[in-house]
Amino acid sequence: MKTKFEPYYAVIFTSTQGEQIEGYSEMAEKMELIAKEQDGFIGIDSARNDVGITVSYWQDLDSIKKWKQNSEHLIAQRKGRSQWYNWYNVRICKIKKEYEYSSP
Amino acid sequence: MKTKFEPYYAVIFTSTQGEQIEGYSEMAEKMELIAKEQDGFIGIDSARNDVGITVSYWQDLDSIKKWKQNSEHLIAQRKGRSQWYNWYNVRICKIKKEYEYSSP
Repeated sequence: MKTKFEPYYAVIFTSTQGEQIEGYSEMAEKMELIAKEQDGFIGIDSARNDVGITVSYWQDLDSIKKWKQNSEHLIAQRKGRSQWYNWYNVRICKIKKEYEYSSP
Repeated sequence: MKTKFEPYYAVIFTSTQGEQIEGYSEMAEKMELIAKEQDGFIGIDSARNDVGITVSYWQDLDSIKKWKQNSEHLIAQRKGRSQWYNWYNVRICKIKKEYEYSSP
């Protein structure tokens, strides 16, 4: 995910899962699709090995707050806690500086 | 990686690799070990699927700058550009807020 630099925000979501992951990848896919439709959404990157890291980028803190309170997202958060995640951490950050490299 | 909340910083390193990844995982492991010895280092999380995401956490911007200029890290950065990465992006962020969940 690339962005043109301007003041914007990142949500770093780090998590570990238990044995029971039925339904997880469908829900993750669905949430990504819905997130992309939200006001203020800029982009998202995800990867998972021992730990899962999803970083989503937003124009402002208000957009992040609204996405946290989105009704379908609330259902996913509840399911995440009751079924899939052993642990997670959410960090809300302001991007101060950014640089990029592309191979020639 | 867990942290007790206080003002601190994250470096979000996002990358895609080419076909040639010989020597990459050894170098990544070595860099993680060296990073952990640096002043101001707090923690690191990594995962890679289509995209690789490494987030390292630091006490202040000065520690991040020094790590970027670390001589062994400079060699790794050069090798990264010439051999392993098609593309990467580095974002330096200030953590504004953090919360965590652990299953009961």
